[in-house]
Amino acid sequence: MFKAYFLSLALSLFITLSSFANDGYKLWMDYQKIENLELKTEVSDLLSNIYFFGKNPTYEAIKNELKLASDSWIGRSPKFSQERLTSAKFYLGTREEFSQVLSLTQQAEIKALGEDGYWMGPVEIEGKTYFSIIGNKPVGVLYGTYKWIKTIQTNTFSKDTEFSDSPKIKLRMLNHWDNLDRTVERGYAGFSIWDWHRLPGYIDPRYIDYARANASIGINAVSLTNVNANALILTTDFMKKAKALADVFRPYGIKVFLTARFSAPMQIGGLETADPLNSEVIDFWKKKTDEIYSFIPDFGGFLVKANSEGQPGPHEYGRNHAEGANMLADALSPHGGLLIWRAFVYSHEDEVDRHMQANNEFEPLDGKFKDNVIIQIKNGAIDFQPREPFHPLFGSINKTNVGMEFQITQEYLGQATNLVYLAPMWEEVLKSKTYKPSPASTVGSVLEGKETGQKTTLIAGVSNIGTDRNWTGHLFAQSNWFAFGKLAWNPEATSAEIAEEWTKLTFSQNQEVVSKVGEILLVSYETAVNYMTPLGLHHIMGRSHHYGPGPWVVGGRADWTAPYYHQADSLGIGFDRTIDGSGALNQYAPEVVKNWEDPHQIPEKYLLWFHHVPWDFELSNGNTLWEEIAYHYDQGVKEVRQMQKTWDSLESQIDPEEFDHVKQLLAIQEEEAEWWRNACLLYFQTFSNRPFPSDIEQPEGNLEYYKSLMFPNAPGI
Amino acid sequence: MFKAYFLSLALSLFITLSSFANDGYKLWMDYQKIENLELKTEVSDLLSNIYFFGKNPTYEAIKNELKLASDSWIGRSPKFSQERLTSAKFYLGTREEFSQVLSLTQQAEIKALGEDGYWMGPVEIEGKTYFSIIGNKPVGVLYGTYKWIKTIQTNTFSKDTEFSDSPKIKLRMLNHWDNLDRTVERGYAGFSIWDWHRLPGYIDPRYIDYARANASIGINAVSLTNVNANALILTTDFMKKAKALADVFRPYGIKVFLTARFSAPMQIGGLETADPLNSEVIDFWKKKTDEIYSFIPDFGGFLVKANSEGQPGPHEYGRNHAEGANMLADALSPHGGLLIWRAFVYSHEDEVDRHMQANNEFEPLDGKFKDNVIIQIKNGAIDFQPREPFHPLFGSINKTNVGMEFQITQEYLGQATNLVYLAPMWEEVLKSKTYKPSPASTVGSVLEGKETGQKTTLIAGVSNIGTDRNWTGHLFAQSNWFAFGKLAWNPEATSAEIAEEWTKLTFSQNQEVVSKVGEILLVSYETAVNYMTPLGLHHIMGRSHHYGPGPWVVGGRADWTAPYYHQADSLGIGFDRTIDGSGALNQYAPEVVKNWEDPHQIPEKYLLWFHHVPWDFELSNGNTLWEEIAYHYDQGVKEVRQMQKTWDSLESQIDPEEFDHVKQLLAIQEEEAEWWRNACLLYFQTFSNRPFPSDIEQPEGNLEYYKSLMFPNAPGI
Repeated sequence: MFKAYFLSLALSLFITLSSFANDGYKLWMDYQKIENLELKTEVSDLLSNIYFFGKNPTYEAIKNELKLASDSWIGRSPKFSQERLTSAKFYLGTREEFSQVLSLTQQAEIKALGEDGYWMGPVEIEGKTYFSIIGNKPVGVLYGTYKWIKTIQTNTFSKDTEFSDSPKIKLRMLNHWDNLDRTVERGYAGFSIWDWHRLPGYIDPRYIDYARANASIGINAVSLTNVNANALILTTDFMKKAKALADVFRPYGIKVFLTARFSAPMQIGGLETADPLNSEVIDFWKKKTDEIYSFIPDFGGFLVKANSEGQPGPHEYGRNHAEGANMLADALSPHGGLLIWRAFVYSHEDEVDRHMQANNEFEPLDGKFKDNVIIQIKNGAIDFQPREPFHPLFGSINKTNVGMEFQITQEYLGQATNLVYLAPMWEEVLKSKTYKPSPASTVGSVLEGKETGQKTTLIAGVSNIGTDRNWTGHLFAQSNWFAFGKLAWNPEATSAEIAEEWTKLTFSQNQEVVSKVGEILLVSYETAVNYMTPLGLHHIMGRSHHYGPGPWVVGGRADWTAPYYHQADSLGIGFDRTIDGSGALNQYAPEVVKNWEDPHQIPEKYLLWFHHVPWDFELSNGNTLWEEIAYHYDQGVKEVRQMQKTWDSLESQIDPEEFDHVKQLLAIQEEEAEWWRNACLLYFQTFSNRPFPSDIEQPEGNLEYYKSLMFPNAPGI
Repeated sequence: MFKAYFLSLALSLFITLSSFANDGYKLWMDYQKIENLELKTEVSDLLSNIYFFGKNPTYEAIKNELKLASDSWIGRSPKFSQERLTSAKFYLGTREEFSQVLSLTQQAEIKALGEDGYWMGPVEIEGKTYFSIIGNKPVGVLYGTYKWIKTIQTNTFSKDTEFSDSPKIKLRMLNHWDNLDRTVERGYAGFSIWDWHRLPGYIDPRYIDYARANASIGINAVSLTNVNANALILTTDFMKKAKALADVFRPYGIKVFLTARFSAPMQIGGLETADPLNSEVIDFWKKKTDEIYSFIPDFGGFLVKANSEGQPGPHEYGRNHAEGANMLADALSPHGGLLIWRAFVYSHEDEVDRHMQANNEFEPLDGKFKDNVIIQIKNGAIDFQPREPFHPLFGSINKTNVGMEFQITQEYLGQATNLVYLAPMWEEVLKSKTYKPSPASTVGSVLEGKETGQKTTLIAGVSNIGTDRNWTGHLFAQSNWFAFGKLAWNPEATSAEIAEEWTKLTFSQNQEVVSKVGEILLVSYETAVNYMTPLGLHHIMGRSHHYGPGPWVVGGRADWTAPYYHQADSLGIGFDRTIDGSGALNQYAPEVVKNWEDPHQIPEKYLLWFHHVPWDFELSNGNTLWEEIAYHYDQGVKEVRQMQKTWDSLESQIDPEEFDHVKQLLAIQEEEAEWWRNACLLYFQTFSNRPFPSDIEQPEGNLEYYKSLMFPNAPGI
């Protein structure tokens, strides 16, 4: 997979010698020469004559992809036949286009795969069998083609084997938090790839590669703009720009959504109110929506953050979230558009435990939302912490469409300098048992619509993509974009199988590489939790930028301070959310309450999330809580060092530019892990008044020093 | 030069098919396979055994470059010999290292080339002749190597020919206007390539390519930060980051400068004053400077913008520019550092014609600046307008070091969407006759120190570099970076010869390509002047962002409005700067005054810069002024269309991604040229009350519409 570079001769004076090696731009689509001769022959044969059963823009996109792959695999371009009866070897098309050559049973089987599904395998045409890829729609053919390409890349292709697949989630969506000035909120990979100023006239080729990358992992929807929205995106000038992007994405099966600022009728409509029940407001949104559809006939809809963190919303007018959402949904409905309404709401005027506020708001409204509304719920009730128990709303509303919001960008997880593979976190959430609405319910089964029959299903992820050449800042952060797509397509996939596939496509099929990179990936999440927020600690990051530790952060609104969350005092640490505390635990099903209400029974990873526990509380391994906290922080640092060793051992097998890139970042990660450990332990020791266990590396440095660190230009704010 | 791409098969639905074609990243260093067999044999022979007469980091950089070139030229790496007596074919080293094999005459000739000079040609060693590159210092060897590489790329190498060169300007410097949050003031190529947050731990390979590109065109100094400076760059944390960059650049002969905020003693030093005569302030700067040199032993010095556009400076304390500059110069002097002080000063409290203010400030201070101070003067007296007469200061101070400040980034020249090759503008300025201090003086001869004997010479350019993959936003803007380096090395070079070299290195040696791209390059500057500000018009751009026309911009301080500069009224148009007007013309030498004081004699390109002229004023071709203005605007649009046609005719000979990129931008440029023409002519017609000439394309649209256009997120502000 990787290439030999003469540049690997290291010069003592250069970190990397140069420059024109593998910069990571090609992501998991860095097609390489096929070394296996048998496979090469077979693939060459297929590519020598390809027939498409129809014509449409998506097939042109597929041809483009086959060209790119073929040029790299076998050093020449594929041939596309105009006449299927000549001598085509490889057939692609929709079930309908194939109908004359498929049996009714075959057709029914394929039809059952749904609109994004596909089938590939041998098809008999006029007495001969030909390898074929068949979708119910052109986009299914596209997904099938990407799957086929991956089988070649991973050397697992056999043209006699049948394979079919279809997504379990209808909308697999990226949420860009990109501002119109190209800054990206919580972006750590440079700036926004949307060059608004030069749109619509200038189409950056990167837009196409972005669409290719998304389609290759099944992502089919994108919200272009920040949820902290700017109403200007809804002006005609910006609609034309958004249209240009939608035109690029359409052949790749990707729909465009925009964020709607609830107060837009006032900002760009000249109205004095944004009251969702006001007829002028209703008219504004109807006309605005009609206008958008005049530019983008398949526009996806709006994504809205309302009445949260200062964003405008229906509460200003005494209306509830359903009234706000439904008004917008009504404007979209005639066009088949969707209204995605975020459940991430909490207020500085609300004294109730922040953990409870979203559930308190939305549970009573269950069933009051229109059919084309989806409530988009973050994985946990606080805010994308390194580890959160699942959001209670996944259990508590079941007469409303619900969707998931994951965060791919690593706001609280080391940003662009820490290697953290997030799929294990997402898998943990998706497999969490909600026990509601049914005893077997999990977050994943709720999202798939299995529990409620909801048809408009959604998994969204906050993008980690920016202008950095490798798209994601950290090369390994590509694995999170990749894994997000895979889990959104199939929430039952495992983080381990995704890690293996990503590694093979990105680095090498070499067994040592696959195994060692896999080790790094799979340990990385728990490692980060250990050195950041072990045992259920949360929200103790630096203020505002969330970079590095800040357990001492106080001042301003209570729920933006760290002590609000860790509640450390001379007796112990942790947030009592049981019935004796805030009561947030009782928003979950009784079975969950039962499992978690006893500090001796709750999985220790959630301990301090739900319980305030004495420093000498004894854990299952016999350690006291204080000791265990110290061991976790120390273990996090040690694990980073082990990741470094493992990576170093791969030097000869990884492209030198990629190797150096990751090596440098791992060195930063080690420093940052030590910083987290030292700062947090020194800080918490001021409450515990206990010595550190003697068998850990003793925290160095001075608490005042750590508190004094300032990052005035940290990215992503 | 260009490559064949299968991707060139255009699909109707895609602007560019993809993606992995030539994205312009390699600039003029996109080394290609040598097709000429004779040359290939000769080059292969040389590269088969290379001997360096010494060891140092710059030689490692040269080896790296030779590897990159060799791999592309002949498909294999060069061999570096440890023993010169074995069988080396190609020798590199300094004059001193070569001393045993060079005659005293040869040594003297090379020595005369100065510290950055080099010589290449055959050298006799033990009875045989070998091709050699010899510098006075290692950096000369580096410059010689880049020159040698260019001769291979342009197929002009002969190993029997001697060649030597040395720069005419000592400091050839890029000024980055990059902020610490990575925005770039007047940046149109994305964001700052300095990833401050991840420095010093993470060294982006792009830093090395940046250094290579600069060294390849002779640039040897860089100011990293915006002249509208942030004092944080002078904190220890940021010094460590700057040191990391300095370490990368050092082997390439590039020195780092930083911008110093005059009020830094207050912002980061805890002082209550920044008075340059205050002993605590003096002490602050001395310690700060010492600290910088502890990190960067060859630190270049400070670049300062003071008492201009709201920046702090010595005037707050009743001190003049010399007192401010000298205090900083004294802090730098023990370390051999330079203090570069900008002459771009004007005040909203000063009623005097802005054109005159810098000269008024600095002329009386001539001779009062320390030896290690350079006054950096913009090419013209206003602010990087599409065309300005040369700055009077180039004639009026001659007992002080003066340097040039060009603007490479196209703030007023179409930003990232207009193709404008700036070398003709710079050439025009450099060749302008100042008549002072001597009758033969030109701006160029003053800068070279020929007139005053000044030794510390400087040509600086405001960088057009950003995170865009092709570095400069517009592929053709690379030609401006290139040309800047070439002219800073040799201010007597012509824009035509630079255009030819850039084209050959960037696109192809094919004669048709060289000739047609040359046509486009050489017409582009006059074209932009025509559709923006013909006949001496200036500063009529949109407010603040300077994007597009804004001759109607009024309100706020007078010298930031357009009518201040165009002075259009019912009688005529233009700024009377003769003795009857502001008198600015009299800041020039009497010979200049004589040439320019009569509106019938002044070159028409400067007419409205110095004269208020009636609408019916007759020009040399018999047209009235009003007609001539209209013809110029119209001509600008027509020329853009001609550039489009010329470019289109090259489609088969240019890499498809590059072709599409430029084609899209030319289409935008055509629209913007029409916008300029229509908006300006409709606006000026409200004063002239005359019809447009019937033989021009009649301005379309409505003035109110053009005035209503808003660009709230235009880049670069």
